[in-house]
Amino acid sequence: MLVNRRTLRIEWGQCDPAGIVFYPQYLIIFDSSTGWLFERTGLTPLAMRRKYGIVGMPIVEVSARFVKPCRFDDEVVVESEIGEWGRSSFTVRHRLFRNGELALEGFEKRVWAAPHPERAGEIRAQAIPEEIVASLSDPTGATTIAPDKTTSSAI
Amino acid sequence: MLVNRRTLRIEWGQCDPAGIVFYPQYLIIFDSSTGWLFERTGLTPLAMRRKYGIVGMPIVEVSARFVKPCRFDDEVVVESEIGEWGRSSFTVRHRLFRNGELALEGFEKRVWAAPHPERAGEIRAQAIPEEIVASLSDPTGATTIAPDKTTSSAI
Amino acid sequence: MLVNRRTLRIEWGQCDPAGIVFYPQYLIIFDSSTGWLFERTGLTPLAMRRKYGIVGMPIVEVSARFVKPCRFDDEVVVESEIGEWGRSSFTVRHRLFRNGELALEGFEKRVWAAPHPERAGEIRAQAIPEEIVASLSDPTGATTIAPDKTTSSAI
Amino acid sequence: MLVNRRTLRIEWGQCDPAGIVFYPQYLIIFDSSTGWLFERTGLTPLAMRRKYGIVGMPIVEVSARFVKPCRFDDEVVVESEIGEWGRSSFTVRHRLFRNGELALEGFEKRVWAAPHPERAGEIRAQAIPEEIVASLSDPTGATTIAPDKTTSSAI
Repeated sequence: MLVNRRTLRIEWGQCDPAGIVFYPQYLIIFDSSTGWLFERTGLTPLAMRRKYGIVGMPIVEVSARFVKPCRFDDEVVVESEIGEWGRSSFTVRHRLFRNGELALEGFEKRVWAAPHPERAGEIRAQAIPEEIVASLSDPTGATTIAPDKTTSSAI
Repeated sequence: MLVNRRTLRIEWGQCDPAGIVFYPQYLIIFDSSTGWLFERTGLTPLAMRRKYGIVGMPIVEVSARFVKPCRFDDEVVVESEIGEWGRSSFTVRHRLFRNGELALEGFEKRVWAAPHPERAGEIRAQAIPEEIVASLSDPTGATTIAPDKTTSSAI
Repeated sequence: MLVNRRTLRIEWGQCDPAGIVFYPQYLIIFDSSTGWLFERTGLTPLAMRRKYGIVGMPIVEVSARFVKPCRFDDEVVVESEIGEWGRSSFTVRHRLFRNGELALEGFEKRVWAAPHPERAGEIRAQAIPEEIVASLSDPTGATTIAPDKTTSSAI
Repeated sequence: MLVNRRTLRIEWGQCDPAGIVFYPQYLIIFDSSTGWLFERTGLTPLAMRRKYGIVGMPIVEVSARFVKPCRFDDEVVVESEIGEWGRSSFTVRHRLFRNGELALEGFEKRVWAAPHPERAGEIRAQAIPEEIVASLSDPTGATTIAPDKTTSSAI
């Protein structure tokens, strides 16, 4: 799989009176890290919505295990990659390191979701385009997708 | 003016490593307190949007002065009222007390905004309905508005 | 087990551009709901720290499953209870309902943590006092603890 | 004055159901931008605390004026600089641009605060070290301070 790495610095406002990161802040980092991973396809979030007609990738499950606390001003590295591909859902695996040591790890399970064809305002899971799978499965990151606005034949 | 009072308890996740409330959290409290003040009209946010065709009350200015810090588990009282009515804008004045002492005060300036009639996706300031002004200007809170779905003649 | 129920209204600032609650916000609700559950012992967070010499109840694991989205202004009910007692750790089970239907459920695993007796700045898991277990295991909520400042013999 | 520039991308979780940034999020950006500006002195937050014996730079006032909304995935530039130096307080001026246009501007007023010499747990404003003023007043950014741990003679 393609691993996306981000280097972040823990901010004052992410920490609690114990001086460590308030844990829901890590889930905010998970969410944006999934966004950056998918951008490695070559498509911005908006381009992805236009190209495939999706409304987004809503979460259906999240889990995290906290190993070591992080503190204000710590430099941390977040590594994100697809854990598993389903037909219309997938997991993103996130690991966060501080000084090279694992501080926490977890996963998000999300759905590739398009507007429901019959029920207005509702969504429906849809098959993940093959080219998305191919792009994020390529560890070199070289398999990117052109951000055109036509409907992809992969759907 | 009608003063809306809320009693809140400061939560762990609102506080920073100095043990005091991280200041942007107070602005989140301002935002929701404005919402609760307007609910005193008798209209939910959704009912207000339907009745008057507005998209919301976007912020154009905010200001706050911090007098005393608040800490985890402090019980605080927030008092919110209209500071000033303009034609299509208004200010909401917020004060937050702990143990009866002023901890901070500030105001938000917001606009009564409807979709722009010509430019899609844009908004336009609109005259605030007289009945909204009347309701929130009544210190007794007795002047409420029925949440029907017809267009108000006050617009 | 004792079930603590809170009724909350979803706020504007908790929702994302899809109009639904941004998922990390639910974990903030988990965190504060655990706080309110433990307050059913009769002890405030501060009183609990003083009485038992703990630094808090740091998280070691969290998991959530999202069933239905919640939106701005939705009234939701959060039910929290102990899922399982370990010697020095425990799980809190949270369920969030909208219109009586399950919207999400999850759990937090936390540790009863005191300062490490030898290593400054570090913490150590410690046996959960029996009276805490008794209090939160009593479904009637009638088993409360006096908030004195003496060290409990239950440790 | 030294202007610190940061380029950020607006994240999904910073935006509200109107599709624009939820305004308290801008204050979180102010807070971290002030942190990055002060790091241009050559001192990390921790080094600054050690060198000068301060507890931090608590906020006493904040103000912001919102000109244009920003949306998910917008690339924005934040420019931060000292607005005014007092003896023991100062303002930081922040401006945020999108596509080269001003989206919002504001300021924070903060205090250079040390522990109170007599009253435990309280703080006291203290004269800002001359070398801090010199460093952040130098528009070239070339005037930096060595992060030693001895007490500065500038206090």
